[in-house]
Amino acid sequence: MIAETPKPPYYAVIFTTLVTDTLDGYEETANQMVEMVSKQDGFLGFEAAREDIGITVSYWKDLASIKAWKENTEHTEARNKGRENWYKAYKTRICKVERDYGLGDI
Amino acid sequence: MIAETPKPPYYAVIFTTLVTDTLDGYEETANQMVEMVSKQDGFLGFEAAREDIGITVSYWKDLASIKAWKENTEHTEARNKGRENWYKAYKTRICKVERDYGLGDI
Repeated sequence: MIAETPKPPYYAVIFTTLVTDTLDGYEETANQMVEMVSKQDGFLGFEAAREDIGITVSYWKDLASIKAWKENTEHTEARNKGRENWYKAYKTRICKVERDYGLGDI
Repeated sequence: MIAETPKPPYYAVIFTTLVTDTLDGYEETANQMVEMVSKQDGFLGFEAAREDIGITVSYWKDLASIKAWKENTEHTEARNKGRENWYKAYKTRICKVERDYGLGDI
């Protein structure tokens, strides 16, 4: 679904990935991370889609919330597993959303 | 592919969409837009994936480049067709990329 975010400014983390062919355990960990991130202070929502590449965008109240999630122990373990097993390449971009607009039921 | 972007700061436009069931002409227009946007001044790259929702992220040198592409005539016509025919809902977010880091061949 399209995330329902508040009026800007807020923050976005764009996480773009290319995965390997050895995805054992990936989905389980991804589902755990979705459940955990949803409970984080300052978390505003997320959007994800995978085709040739995967794009996950999470939205946050401020940089401190992003940092706290980055330092979360289980998240750090999941990232390490990702780097070792699942991701051929990835890029993380920390962004300040300055303006937004839309159409429809979002 | 994962976009090869320069050192921050630069800009990202996150365009998230829910499409209708009437996608006649959509792919042709989307391909035209990809070809055109690639020639725009200040365009740095883009990433796209569609699953339940579509996420397209385009990267830009500055806000002026984003504005010029928004005002491009063919792009404006394509957006109007999108609003009328193809999109049930969408959200556009204009962001300043403050920091990025990654792994691998990107």
